[in-house]
Amino acid sequence: MNKILGGKIEIKSKFKLTKRNLPVIYTPGVAELSREIAKNKKRVYDLTWKKNNVAIVSDGSAVLGLGNLGPEAALPVMEGKAVIFKEMGGVDAVPVVLNTQDTEEIIKIAKVIAPGFGGINLEDISAPRCFEIEKRLIRELDIPVFHDDQHGTAIAVLAGLVNALKVTKKDIKKIKIIVSGAGAAGIAITKMLLKYGAKNIIAFDSRSPICRVCAYNKNDAKDELAKKTNLENFKGNLPEALIGADVFIGVSAPNLLKSGDVARMNKNAIVFTMSNPEPEISYKEAKKGGAAVVATGRSDFPNQINNALVFPGLFRGALDTRTRLITDKLKIKAALAIAGLVKNPKNDRIVPDVLDKRVAKAVAGVFQK
Amino acid sequence: MNKILGGKIEIKSKFKLTKRNLPVIYTPGVAELSREIAKNKKRVYDLTWKKNNVAIVSDGSAVLGLGNLGPEAALPVMEGKAVIFKEMGGVDAVPVVLNTQDTEEIIKIAKVIAPGFGGINLEDISAPRCFEIEKRLIRELDIPVFHDDQHGTAIAVLAGLVNALKVTKKDIKKIKIIVSGAGAAGIAITKMLLKYGAKNIIAFDSRSPICRVCAYNKNDAKDELAKKTNLENFKGNLPEALIGADVFIGVSAPNLLKSGDVARMNKNAIVFTMSNPEPEISYKEAKKGGAAVVATGRSDFPNQINNALVFPGLFRGALDTRTRLITDKLKIKAALAIAGLVKNPKNDRIVPDVLDKRVAKAVAGVFQK
Repeated sequence: MNKILGGKIEIKSKFKLTKRNLPVIYTPGVAELSREIAKNKKRVYDLTWKKNNVAIVSDGSAVLGLGNLGPEAALPVMEGKAVIFKEMGGVDAVPVVLNTQDTEEIIKIAKVIAPGFGGINLEDISAPRCFEIEKRLIRELDIPVFHDDQHGTAIAVLAGLVNALKVTKKDIKKIKIIVSGAGAAGIAITKMLLKYGAKNIIAFDSRSPICRVCAYNKNDAKDELAKKTNLENFKGNLPEALIGADVFIGVSAPNLLKSGDVARMNKNAIVFTMSNPEPEISYKEAKKGGAAVVATGRSDFPNQINNALVFPGLFRGALDTRTRLITDKLKIKAALAIAGLVKNPKNDRIVPDVLDKRVAKAVAGVFQK
Repeated sequence: MNKILGGKIEIKSKFKLTKRNLPVIYTPGVAELSREIAKNKKRVYDLTWKKNNVAIVSDGSAVLGLGNLGPEAALPVMEGKAVIFKEMGGVDAVPVVLNTQDTEEIIKIAKVIAPGFGGINLEDISAPRCFEIEKRLIRELDIPVFHDDQHGTAIAVLAGLVNALKVTKKDIKKIKIIVSGAGAAGIAITKMLLKYGAKNIIAFDSRSPICRVCAYNKNDAKDELAKKTNLENFKGNLPEALIGADVFIGVSAPNLLKSGDVARMNKNAIVFTMSNPEPEISYKEAKKGGAAVVATGRSDFPNQINNALVFPGLFRGALDTRTRLITDKLKIKAALAIAGLVKNPKNDRIVPDVLDKRVAKAVAGVFQK
């Protein structure tokens, strides 16, 4: 397939313009809708596309795993997400890329454009700014706000891990987990695994392991993790940490590991190597190292653990039920719903296919209860 | 036709998602586009929908002729425009309604969201803030910015007037023109008619005529008009001003005139009664008063003078030729292009139909020269 020119999405009218419907779609008929919403603001959900749309807001500061490329370069990613939003979840997602990386400005702008959207998907905003931005918007807006790089990834990882643990017959409470990457995704994954019952996690930022006494690049989010992870204050490097580990979860940078590192993990090792587009260790190398289950974030290898499994159904559910707060409980339910779609998990089949139409339905379904 | 529920537009993917194109549309393939744009920002036009999209930005402060209804109530109008943008001009227009009416905030937000859009159509922003907002954005952004309530309306009015003058055999240089309304539209119309050769215009704001010595509600834009209109310092009311006038152009408020007022205009009077959705005088009453040519802004009467004739083609042309500055010369050319599509203008046919597919093409064509 050739390079995609001219973008991947378009605005489509739900109506073909005719002499008969022009006065309804435009003036004078449209005035009736405006008057009705002016009288009762809630009617905006019935009378406009707010009912079914979200803004994908990005400042381009953390585009995929490529880094701070700016808003223009972020746009193709947001368009790709919009395609998946619509095709998988039926959600109308509008890319809004921002020419600012100032936390307060981003918060301000998201709040100001919110009246036209049913939800806000924050995307590719670097840590730790993303934490403050999401927290404030959740508090200050009356529509659901969800930073997909954090929670979408965490939900997808948990879904995959639940089934990988089944395949390898391991118990979340008893395993050693190494998380590489303490940005948006790494921190959210670690928190969610702790919430789901994991007891022994060591998380690494780009420099070192995080612990109460380690010399990591401090921020509030990492300090919070330091209290609950690496309780034995391990201070070695990533390959050393992998010795005797059961699970490796990479959301960091390309080519950090070799097959020999994987070989030193426990038997039936689980390797989620998800840096995008280039993983921490390739699928093949990880297999060569003897890992029982290997997953990547890419669609061209088995076990694609990608938030594309999550965001279409998540916003579908939140929009349909007009749920403002997407709680941790809902997130864990969503992960279990995704995992549950794989009836007999196998080494190379721990998550459903990203294109499996049942996924969005199952995820949206957790909002119905 | 019933009330439109759930909005009038949607986001559509240009591709059906398949196993084969998923790695191209989304990760890892999308990274290639991001990298390319990061290297050369201009490539965003080739590799994203920026090539073909505009943001319709409104603060809901002047929704149609209904007043300050706020962003939610503005949304149906923006969606209606988006339908016309796409159906008539093939332009992907995204409503962005703002929860602020602060001039500097609106300028800031439009600038920050600009990287994702090929143009900005300002809409339903009240005067005089709209003048400052447009002026600043034109100066500070590298994409075309166009306040449709001003210039779209002015271009449509000039197109209609050119043909109405043909029908009534009047000369722009010799006629007396009364403009009712000194908001965004009224001021832009008056300026454009002056530029096109009109010598005798009296413009009214909601209180009184504008002139160097009149007691009108002053602002910079009106002060500028005061130097070039109403040179005889007429101080009477609107019906009095109509005595001996050739043209009435209303972009103000409903029900200001009676048929008797039209009857006191010169022979072969031209009445453009365009307040939306309710005009200054109804089509029928104006006809009853003896007007030779009557036009409204509505699609349910003959002679619909509506900026829908203008904005789809205008942005089509600006996007295709990557024109940043939409000059007065281009605007007058656009008006003449629209007028020129009516081969034999008649009393009830001075402008082409809003649904005439030739209109956007003709307007876009003026950018090609």
